[in-house]
Amino acid sequence: MNQDYIKPDNWSIIEEGFDVERVKSSESLFSIGNGAMGQRANFEEAYSGPTFQGSYVAGVYYPDKTRVGWWKNGYPEYFAKVLNAPNWIGINVEINGEKLDLYRCRSITNFRRELNMKEGWYQRSFDITLLNGIEVSVKSVRFLSLDLDEVGAIKYEVTPINHDATVVFTPYLDSGITNEDTNWDDKFWDTYDLSQQGDSAYILSKTMKTEFHVCTGMLNQIFLEGEQKNIYPKVETNSTYVKLNYSIVIPKGKTAGIVKFGGYTVSLNHKEKDLASASTTVLKQASESGFDALLDLQKKAWSRIWEMADITIEGDVKAQQGIRFNIFQLNQTYLGKDARLNIGPKGFTGEKYGGSTYWDTEAYCIPFYMATKDQVVARNLLTYRYNHLERAIENAEKLGFTNGAALYPMVTMNGEECHNEWEITFEEIHRNGAMTFAIYNYHRYTGDYSYIPEKGLEVMIGVARFWHQRATLSTDKNKYVILGVTGPNEYENNVNNNWYTNYLAKWSIEYCIENINKVKAEYKSDYTRIIEKTNLKQEEINAMSEVAEKMYFPFSEKHKVYLQQDGFLDKELISVSDLDSSQRPINQKWSWDRILRSPYIKQADVLQGFYMFEDQFTKEELALHFDFYEPFTVHESSLSPCVHSIQAAALDRMDQAYTFYLRTSRLDLDDYNKEVEEGLHITSMAGTWMSIVEGFGGLRIKNDTLSFAPKIPKEWKGYTFNVNFRNQILKVNVSQEGTSFNLEGDHELLIYVDDKEFKISPNSLITI
Amino acid sequence: MNQDYIKPDNWSIIEEGFDVERVKSSESLFSIGNGAMGQRANFEEAYSGPTFQGSYVAGVYYPDKTRVGWWKNGYPEYFAKVLNAPNWIGINVEINGEKLDLYRCRSITNFRRELNMKEGWYQRSFDITLLNGIEVSVKSVRFLSLDLDEVGAIKYEVTPINHDATVVFTPYLDSGITNEDTNWDDKFWDTYDLSQQGDSAYILSKTMKTEFHVCTGMLNQIFLEGEQKNIYPKVETNSTYVKLNYSIVIPKGKTAGIVKFGGYTVSLNHKEKDLASASTTVLKQASESGFDALLDLQKKAWSRIWEMADITIEGDVKAQQGIRFNIFQLNQTYLGKDARLNIGPKGFTGEKYGGSTYWDTEAYCIPFYMATKDQVVARNLLTYRYNHLERAIENAEKLGFTNGAALYPMVTMNGEECHNEWEITFEEIHRNGAMTFAIYNYHRYTGDYSYIPEKGLEVMIGVARFWHQRATLSTDKNKYVILGVTGPNEYENNVNNNWYTNYLAKWSIEYCIENINKVKAEYKSDYTRIIEKTNLKQEEINAMSEVAEKMYFPFSEKHKVYLQQDGFLDKELISVSDLDSSQRPINQKWSWDRILRSPYIKQADVLQGFYMFEDQFTKEELALHFDFYEPFTVHESSLSPCVHSIQAAALDRMDQAYTFYLRTSRLDLDDYNKEVEEGLHITSMAGTWMSIVEGFGGLRIKNDTLSFAPKIPKEWKGYTFNVNFRNQILKVNVSQEGTSFNLEGDHELLIYVDDKEFKISPNSLITI
Repeated sequence: MNQDYIKPDNWSIIEEGFDVERVKSSESLFSIGNGAMGQRANFEEAYSGPTFQGSYVAGVYYPDKTRVGWWKNGYPEYFAKVLNAPNWIGINVEINGEKLDLYRCRSITNFRRELNMKEGWYQRSFDITLLNGIEVSVKSVRFLSLDLDEVGAIKYEVTPINHDATVVFTPYLDSGITNEDTNWDDKFWDTYDLSQQGDSAYILSKTMKTEFHVCTGMLNQIFLEGEQKNIYPKVETNSTYVKLNYSIVIPKGKTAGIVKFGGYTVSLNHKEKDLASASTTVLKQASESGFDALLDLQKKAWSRIWEMADITIEGDVKAQQGIRFNIFQLNQTYLGKDARLNIGPKGFTGEKYGGSTYWDTEAYCIPFYMATKDQVVARNLLTYRYNHLERAIENAEKLGFTNGAALYPMVTMNGEECHNEWEITFEEIHRNGAMTFAIYNYHRYTGDYSYIPEKGLEVMIGVARFWHQRATLSTDKNKYVILGVTGPNEYENNVNNNWYTNYLAKWSIEYCIENINKVKAEYKSDYTRIIEKTNLKQEEINAMSEVAEKMYFPFSEKHKVYLQQDGFLDKELISVSDLDSSQRPINQKWSWDRILRSPYIKQADVLQGFYMFEDQFTKEELALHFDFYEPFTVHESSLSPCVHSIQAAALDRMDQAYTFYLRTSRLDLDDYNKEVEEGLHITSMAGTWMSIVEGFGGLRIKNDTLSFAPKIPKEWKGYTFNVNFRNQILKVNVSQEGTSFNLEGDHELLIYVDDKEFKISPNSLITI
Repeated sequence: MNQDYIKPDNWSIIEEGFDVERVKSSESLFSIGNGAMGQRANFEEAYSGPTFQGSYVAGVYYPDKTRVGWWKNGYPEYFAKVLNAPNWIGINVEINGEKLDLYRCRSITNFRRELNMKEGWYQRSFDITLLNGIEVSVKSVRFLSLDLDEVGAIKYEVTPINHDATVVFTPYLDSGITNEDTNWDDKFWDTYDLSQQGDSAYILSKTMKTEFHVCTGMLNQIFLEGEQKNIYPKVETNSTYVKLNYSIVIPKGKTAGIVKFGGYTVSLNHKEKDLASASTTVLKQASESGFDALLDLQKKAWSRIWEMADITIEGDVKAQQGIRFNIFQLNQTYLGKDARLNIGPKGFTGEKYGGSTYWDTEAYCIPFYMATKDQVVARNLLTYRYNHLERAIENAEKLGFTNGAALYPMVTMNGEECHNEWEITFEEIHRNGAMTFAIYNYHRYTGDYSYIPEKGLEVMIGVARFWHQRATLSTDKNKYVILGVTGPNEYENNVNNNWYTNYLAKWSIEYCIENINKVKAEYKSDYTRIIEKTNLKQEEINAMSEVAEKMYFPFSEKHKVYLQQDGFLDKELISVSDLDSSQRPINQKWSWDRILRSPYIKQADVLQGFYMFEDQFTKEELALHFDFYEPFTVHESSLSPCVHSIQAAALDRMDQAYTFYLRTSRLDLDDYNKEVEEGLHITSMAGTWMSIVEGFGGLRIKNDTLSFAPKIPKEWKGYTFNVNFRNQILKVNVSQEGTSFNLEGDHELLIYVDDKEFKISPNSLITI
């Protein structure tokens, strides 16, 4: 842990006291988003201290020309950068001629931030004495509307404490913004129109190259003592900003405020020519409702989300705060309405990593969204990949594959590969298997087979074709081998026969063929369409099948475990616990080659396979592999501890499971990795959710229904979680005494608890 | 082959006719150098077409801050860039008010370049009709003096053909130059003084960060019809240039010319405060001798070089031209006078690759310099590495090694590592063994053991310590393994147990211990000093010895060959000849991952080991390995064909040997790799020399003396080469009829020819 300034609280993230050193961390932690846009918790008023400005629009990116030290054939030409979008939250405040600036003042007291996760708003308040001696109290409340997702609202209030004061509020729009992350200092935005009328204004700009057109708009209202005032603003503009200056005299002790409605309309959702009018319309709609009414809607919308997604933990406030923070951020990032969007690793909280979509979505996020939302959300995430199938085929073609083989990208915005490290881009190909796994997982959980004939099978065929072509026959072994890969454990590069990759390849081919047969038998017209489109021949299926059948798996007879890759046993097998602690984290202390030749595992690799295909192995095999690999695992990826936590729980090692859980749940709040300034680890938050639901709760799908094996850390009194299973909500309450289930739905549900069958009637509670 | 505009000629490189498209290629091919400085064949007069300007000063570089896509721990902070130095060759020419510019004129005829390799000068001549209708004949001759190596001289002559003409010659110095290769567009030079007096001027500038101070000077003389004229120049200066304008009226048919002496004095060789006066003095000395006298000295100096280094080929002009071009360029780049200098991969002909020193020097260049120069030259090259030993130890420490283990850099200027690709920088560690091999090779050839107790043993100990620490015990194999390396074949990265690397490691340790024992027995005071300095203990020697003894070598029982690395037989072993030619060169046609998992070999790897340690294997073993690996070798490195050529010759496969030879000897002249614009492949030129002397001539050291196995390609009538062996020159003349040897020396020399002993008396000829 590197910080502990966040106050423990069941429902809110709270910071008290102002510290310049914490500003960037808090800008990340107090980020808000509504799935369509999001922003770091930058101050509305001017701030001359260190800050990382960020406001992001879902789906809007810039293809930044690749810059690498040494070019390798096959590298993509660009990296899709997450774009800092025009600023609409800015409100400069001048008090008796002095600019309000927390970095330049006499003193600040009572500084407080609160991110209310229950209701979805962010508030900041403080008392400040300016250099000119004026003392004022400031409070601002901000939220991004879930109901009108093109709108955010700010209520910014100032109360002079020791004198009457002349305050100038200057709400502005500014498209002259820059990215921290840029390869060539390119200009990312081109502003081509700017308009102001009364209290409203907008800026029309488009991204360079990608030509996303965005209208950034604002509409302002001025209040004194709660009463709206008509003040004619003084207007300032240049080519990239428009500022409205509202001057108002505030008597000592009275409160004046500005309500600013702002946000974006985007050409993804509107015709270019309609962007300005759409912006004007939606802002007018918001302002007519008014700030308070819109905030009420916000609270209701969040209440609906929590109804399905909440996890409660009794007896551990910090754990409670941690899990809710994770669930809250996931919901701020992606709500599943739009199949063109996905879950970026930093969500709307920073620029780092770029792109929006990694295999994190398929491996970690889909289970969360399946269990806490309507199944259409997970289906939209699958459809996202279906819509990118042509690009995945092109991507594979760039690497020399043919005949409709598809390689999904490591990182992408629009389906094209962005990443540019050969050992990842070209070699971390296990990601491709996750596409098929997600389809399997979706069908297993939702029971909705229709996705497969409609869309999923085409994806599976592209993926299976890739594995078929990527595996090669070793005449030496008379087995198919997969050479030159990087597994989920990125502390190994360019290895041969990574067990996880080979296993996933074999399984992806087999599952594809199984579904080809099923679709052939049961969905004839879909089958005909797909065969025609993919030009799939029986000989190719036979050849694929042979690859799966004769796939090679490195295995140690001595240890009775599958080896992470060929040659793993040649390493110096010193366990992490025997490593001097001064050497860790190895990714900061060791050169890359030393990491590579060490046995240390960044994140679950063989164990990731055991997690995904748990039912294909015995518990004894799981224990053998867990005991073999866990001691070498350094968990230097945020995606790692959750898998180990789930497996430790499955093996009844609750102390270990709890330890792993703690590493994930407050990763950002306590800034374990010393990098929260750059943004939050959004996708790994889904892993934290899995640690509780699949780990402690033991949720699995067995015999086409829910199965549980509830356990509870001794540190907790109890915990609850909800799962949406095929349109019924099952509420699970685990305590030290036992587990109760409450079904909200309309028909009886058969479930397994510790492998025993139970039937639960709708709207009834059973306790076990 | 991609070009064939160079006219075949035994002694000169000749281009006829002007072609804008060839300018940059010719700038490389006609480069001149004298070991202390060098320059591309840029025009003296202004040229507004595409050109790559380059003038380079030996040992002067800039540490350009590393720029990579993805930082890996252990990367060096900078890359030493070869620096384009201030321009001293420039002479603007104005004719009746119009600037002479080959890119903007009515017509050019009789354009001709000649690089006279026999005498060491470069000439260019052409007739040009300007836009203003004036027709003039231009001729310029240029050389960099071998005798005064801080001086170059240009004689630039203009003859009006159709009218009298007023010509303004504007010789200038310009330090406002830039690099093509720069990571951050840094400013590389800072100019701090500028002075002009009469016909002379100088500019003092220093490199940023490294603070090399360089005085760039010039001294001009104007001639009309061969008679020197005193013309008072008009002076123009700004902060980075000084120009002298000489105006002269030339009657039609008469010739006026400017002789410009210029060059650099450098703080590597002078005190900073003396740079300007040193420049003035040496330029005065040159001008007092005069252009023609200095050129006569140049011819004599080159004659002395050729006396020892020349190879003649009868019956094949292009082969003759090719081999002389290689020998000439090697001598232009490095003359062995200064142990601070080394042989850059592009010499003084371009910026690419940066740095100056690769393992090319130890593996390819030292044999050439040993056989064609006094042995002090090779000793200087070894001393260069001895002087960098402390830096090599620091470099190893950065990667986690301890106790004086040394890792020599992949690329360096001053001993620090510059390169920044993890798979090369951290993993291509076989380079370290080349340091020990070069010492062994030097002793074997020269018989001079003194270098080892004096300097070499310390290097060997540092290297052996590295291998000791880098190898790890595989408890699975009960053998020492070396994991995560890149061998000479850079089409494999991060492999385990590269045979060449393991073999070199074992040998380096054994040879080091052998010499520790010898120095202990025979050089007691050196031994005491070394043991004290290195703190080497018997236990460490024992432990090293165990690593060497128990080193693991991958071997195929089926094929009876050592495997290039673990798992090589799992590849799809399709030979290059079965590969569709549209797929080649694979480094342009295939993505990097596909190259990596293919069996294709960029340059000799196992065979490189067989080349270096030929006497440790039988001819049958060589044949087995050659037959196994040659079919997979694509020779996409300029350093590859020479090794195969030598081995094919040793195996009596002269057709194959000749084919490989052709690939190396005219690599740049015929621009096989389509990149000669960027500069020449200097270090691989030594490989071409080896192909003839060690390949066709069969030169080896056996029983402490020279051994030959002369063969001759059927395409040639005969060839000759000379070798300096322990201060006697042996001239070898091979023809289709037999071989004759002529010894220039003072004592009888025993040699082997086809394993039979012969005694050669001084100054006598024997024919076999």
